[in-house]
Amino acid sequence: MDRLIRAIDEKANPSVVGLDPTPMLLPEPLLAAARAASASERAEALAQAYFSFNKAIIDAVKDVVPAVKPQIAMYEALGVSGVATYVRTTSYAHDAGLYVLGDIKRGDIGSTASAYASHLSGMPPLEDGYEDDATTDVDLWHEDAVTVNPYLGTDGITPFVEAADRADKDLFVLVRTSNPSSRELQELDAEGTPVSDRVGDLVETWGEPTRGDFGYSRVGAVVGATHREVGRRLRARLPHTFFLVPGFGAQGGTAADIAPMFDSAGRGALVNSSRGIIGAWRKDALAETITTEAAALDCVATAARTAALTMKKSIVTELEKNLGN
Amino acid sequence: MDRLIRAIDEKANPSVVGLDPTPMLLPEPLLAAARAASASERAEALAQAYFSFNKAIIDAVKDVVPAVKPQIAMYEALGVSGVATYVRTTSYAHDAGLYVLGDIKRGDIGSTASAYASHLSGMPPLEDGYEDDATTDVDLWHEDAVTVNPYLGTDGITPFVEAADRADKDLFVLVRTSNPSSRELQELDAEGTPVSDRVGDLVETWGEPTRGDFGYSRVGAVVGATHREVGRRLRARLPHTFFLVPGFGAQGGTAADIAPMFDSAGRGALVNSSRGIIGAWRKDALAETITTEAAALDCVATAARTAALTMKKSIVTELEKNLGN
Repeated sequence: MDRLIRAIDEKANPSVVGLDPTPMLLPEPLLAAARAASASERAEALAQAYFSFNKAIIDAVKDVVPAVKPQIAMYEALGVSGVATYVRTTSYAHDAGLYVLGDIKRGDIGSTASAYASHLSGMPPLEDGYEDDATTDVDLWHEDAVTVNPYLGTDGITPFVEAADRADKDLFVLVRTSNPSSRELQELDAEGTPVSDRVGDLVETWGEPTRGDFGYSRVGAVVGATHREVGRRLRARLPHTFFLVPGFGAQGGTAADIAPMFDSAGRGALVNSSRGIIGAWRKDALAETITTEAAALDCVATAARTAALTMKKSIVTELEKNLGN
Repeated sequence: MDRLIRAIDEKANPSVVGLDPTPMLLPEPLLAAARAASASERAEALAQAYFSFNKAIIDAVKDVVPAVKPQIAMYEALGVSGVATYVRTTSYAHDAGLYVLGDIKRGDIGSTASAYASHLSGMPPLEDGYEDDATTDVDLWHEDAVTVNPYLGTDGITPFVEAADRADKDLFVLVRTSNPSSRELQELDAEGTPVSDRVGDLVETWGEPTRGDFGYSRVGAVVGATHREVGRRLRARLPHTFFLVPGFGAQGGTAADIAPMFDSAGRGALVNSSRGIIGAWRKDALAETITTEAAALDCVATAARTAALTMKKSIVTELEKNLGN
């Protein structure tokens, strides 16, 4: 997790921009080609528009935030064209010097988990064993970290930890998600301890051999911003686990909600906002009057940058208040 | 689930072939192009080989089995080229009249789950609401069902159920997986009931509004073949839930292990085998002497067909024994 923590320190900003485009989040001029396309060509046209949109946002925020987090579901919704745009986006963000957190929430068993771990480790070798095969050096996904689902247990996680360690990358395991029905499973009382805390304990164990310079392991946890007390409890329970915190902004989480997820040095968490940043242009009263693609991308970029700076300020102010206490 | 059940009845075979290619499962002549390719072109060459391999198997088993189950992880390991081959495979299997079960194990919250549900429902509309937009008629993934991870709770599942209902498709939720460490979370004791049974209860609830002609809903459950007593318990507990049963063969599950997962009419479950079918050619002593791609594909096809017929016989014999009792 050291690379991420250093990137956060450099930008003095523990926040990440979620690149989760949908047709509704794109200004009208960017949708023109998709509207004009035949049904069978529409996915490709929309995928091209998603890339222009992402590129404008990446260029606008790359000196403000340390990381971006594309949500692969939004791209899969456009089929293979969408997945190609996901990879163009991760590659572009990587080249812009950003830490790329692929929100892919994969999870499977044994050999299948190893295949998914290729997101981090490169394509599978043609022979057994990684060392002898140059193909594994080809990074097909350009992700510095991915999110992983823990429901299958240790043998679904180990391949990701090994791949992360080999490639100097990280993973974030879902522990407590930000959505209302997360409690159905995650807060079930398992012999006196909520299931999410049990998963958190596993995350500490999985990460233990990979702790870095700041005391945090390569195995982080996803802990939603919408549960302040859960966040406080998990921060104390999982001292070596870095948190990825979704749910800030549009989903209702505030700076005060997320402050308890940081450690006493103001480290230990990365807060995500997606719609709050990439959809900020919709609050610009002039946006509706824009007719060209270039002007629309300008409007998106300016609003995203302002929103990213506002988010940074609100988090940093809250953290300074807490550190001052 | 009616379309799947009718397909099983027609073939008198409740088994499905897992299309999970890896380099190690391909005969040497199929790897020649990948070996000759530069590192950057190797993924594309391997993806082409995967499709030839899958096509040979689909042609060989299409009159034996009702369904195939490609595991998307194996394709993602080859990046965008791999995902393109996944879609070519689902499309080819669909055109061959097979029910296509996409083993994608997706799972996320709210709007993100809706995006993943596009696997079933077609690409997202350019405006709010599905009815007015022809783009949603474009099926980008050619899957009749997908597997889904339940860790995020109801709001991660509802979009899939709605999409399945709209498109006459199905989903299978992970309940108890076949791997050794599945017990870490899935068998935690949650107030007297294992977590997996709690998830099973949720699956019954999620499926309730979508029950079909045979009493089974569109929301199935994944229950591993490696836990005979768990299977028996869940069959009794979840009378309206169709089971997808992985872990047969290579992972150790036997026909006797899976028999209790069927109902008294011999329905209610679909048993998967992957390596046991697609890797059956490796038991052919002559396989090593083959030098041409055509002969290799022939060998793969013949062995897969024989293995699929053997699997059918072993399951049907066991079920007839039980029905006779």
